[in-house]
Amino acid sequence: MYPKAMEELIESLKSLPGVGGKTAERYCFSIMQMDNDRIDVLLESIKAVKSDIHKCSVCNSLTDSNICNICDDEFRDSSLLCVVEDYKSVVLFEKLGTFKGMYHVLDSLINPSEGVNPEDIGLDKLLDRIKTNNFKEIIIAVKQSIEGETTSLYISRLLDDSKLSVTRLASGIPMGADMEYVDIMTLERAINDRKKIA
Amino acid sequence: MYPKAMEELIESLKSLPGVGGKTAERYCFSIMQMDNDRIDVLLESIKAVKSDIHKCSVCNSLTDSNICNICDDEFRDSSLLCVVEDYKSVVLFEKLGTFKGMYHVLDSLINPSEGVNPEDIGLDKLLDRIKTNNFKEIIIAVKQSIEGETTSLYISRLLDDSKLSVTRLASGIPMGADMEYVDIMTLERAINDRKKIA
Repeated sequence: MYPKAMEELIESLKSLPGVGGKTAERYCFSIMQMDNDRIDVLLESIKAVKSDIHKCSVCNSLTDSNICNICDDEFRDSSLLCVVEDYKSVVLFEKLGTFKGMYHVLDSLINPSEGVNPEDIGLDKLLDRIKTNNFKEIIIAVKQSIEGETTSLYISRLLDDSKLSVTRLASGIPMGADMEYVDIMTLERAINDRKKIA
Repeated sequence: MYPKAMEELIESLKSLPGVGGKTAERYCFSIMQMDNDRIDVLLESIKAVKSDIHKCSVCNSLTDSNICNICDDEFRDSSLLCVVEDYKSVVLFEKLGTFKGMYHVLDSLINPSEGVNPEDIGLDKLLDRIKTNNFKEIIIAVKQSIEGETTSLYISRLLDDSKLSVTRLASGIPMGADMEYVDIMTLERAINDRKKIA
């Protein structure tokens, strides 16, 4: 129904997460109304994220230089290493703003049913980094799921012989959640990890 | 917090309608994960909507040729002209699929408070077209608002001397709407326009 160029743009936009036909149409009209300068900025920035952004050579986070801002920041606490499953987690922690240590981004979580074995998630790089740095604590901050648990356990076993303190994030009832909506696994963990009231 | 190229893309994406920071970030990650072929298609289609799409020389609808598909379709009912306020309305009618006449897209609706006067909405082109064609009925299908009413009335006055039947869309209670949520103006129109039950 639309002219060909519009159909193609709408089709492209539909591959964005959560974007259906109606939203893609609205975006298409909006793009058509942008002036040429804004279109150029949009085109250039799409090209740039594909060409300029790559993994940090130290921590696997995303950066446009060889070493990311965080690894390059001498004021961060270099005794603390937070192991995360993807760059989005780094962003989340940085938004929180209270964690001042370093990060290490895994390639993936261990997931044998999808063919992702321990040797596929980039642990060599992590272990090398731990060997050559003076971390005191490794915080494993991955998703609370079968894959996350497996990965946490695997890494903590690898570090058994080291003097490092290996920790994971607390899991339990989310703040503000109604008890009736809490799932069984979360409840079980919350009971097991119960803390003394101060 | 993000590398520069990502910040710029996120900023660009935030100018799409209804897209805030979080959504723009998700789109940015999604674009970074597209393979190069899909990126090329996206870039090309953005360029193409800006370069290839323009107004139909007959009806002002959008097209990538000189005359749009609808104006060029000899099987449409050329006695019926539906005057709409923008191309989106054409799309809406075409999706409905039951209207088989022609369209004419105005440049805008009359809106003196925003400096849009009758001479600014492209009526010359509409009148020329009406003069040189054998339309029997002009359906004015614009928004039911002050601007829409003003524009409808103005056009119908201009056509007073013609033998044309000038109609507007029915307005009234939307199908399925709860009576308690119907606004006063709609209710007033629905009472005035009441129809005999067959």
